[in-house]
Amino acid sequence: MSAKDTYFMEIAVDLALKARKEGDEPFGALLVHKDQVVKTSENQVHTLSDPTAHAELKLIREYCNENRIEDLSEYTLYTSCEPCAMCSGAMVWSKLGRLVYGVSHDALAKIAGDNIMIGCEELFEKSPHSPDVKGGVLKSMAIKVFDDYTFGGH
Amino acid sequence: MSAKDTYFMEIAVDLALKARKEGDEPFGALLVHKDQVVKTSENQVHTLSDPTAHAELKLIREYCNENRIEDLSEYTLYTSCEPCAMCSGAMVWSKLGRLVYGVSHDALAKIAGDNIMIGCEELFEKSPHSPDVKGGVLKSMAIKVFDDYTFGGH
Repeated sequence: MSAKDTYFMEIAVDLALKARKEGDEPFGALLVHKDQVVKTSENQVHTLSDPTAHAELKLIREYCNENRIEDLSEYTLYTSCEPCAMCSGAMVWSKLGRLVYGVSHDALAKIAGDNIMIGCEELFEKSPHSPDVKGGVLKSMAIKVFDDYTFGGH
Repeated sequence: MSAKDTYFMEIAVDLALKARKEGDEPFGALLVHKDQVVKTSENQVHTLSDPTAHAELKLIREYCNENRIEDLSEYTLYTSCEPCAMCSGAMVWSKLGRLVYGVSHDALAKIAGDNIMIGCEELFEKSPHSPDVKGGVLKSMAIKVFDDYTFGGH
């Protein structure tokens, strides 16, 4: 586990805690380009009343739109949990270069009680584009975000 | 095939043609509640420089946000083509009640040359929520939208 990945994952976990405090689901993500954070994002499903406002999809959508780019192959996305199928799809369509996550999809499903049971790597394998994936970074820290949390929206 | 489904699918196909004319990918979708069209949407991936701006996801995102609802279980979404995994995920998270599509995922993949090779029904089966699905409505008409079309973005 590189020091860089640990450093950026700490930020993702902080963003997840921020989302939780604001009444949204506890997920955070950030986009990194050449070792610089270019944008951060947190889940805002309830704040925005938008079931698609997961941290990762919102990050990709807003960053691409604001910067008029459709190709993230030079970027790394850090997210506190393995992305769901919707967000993994957004990573395919934006040609994301690298994905780093904390808590795995299966570990999250045990906590959340339900999920779309297709892991990101299975989805990427069946796709025309796949980012490099590194999972489990700071997972012990990242999973604490869910302590005493009850899922509402999903 | 009900007359209602045919009627609404014609609108979805018209929206796909509109997207094509505007330089986006040729996909259209609409949301229906109690037999009334409540919102229409077309692909705007290139116009918005947003790889997530597929007709279906954009429709769900905007309608839920504008109307402050997170539950579409009373709604039917019509789309000119079977939704990709990203858009199918958005349907799960918004608890969409019913999905009607024209061209199937496999037929589209043959035209587009690549796709995320997970059909919507496979994804729904592995999900905590699944809309009722009806495919192949006006498929011969819907597939003509792609005549002489070359995919750029995906």
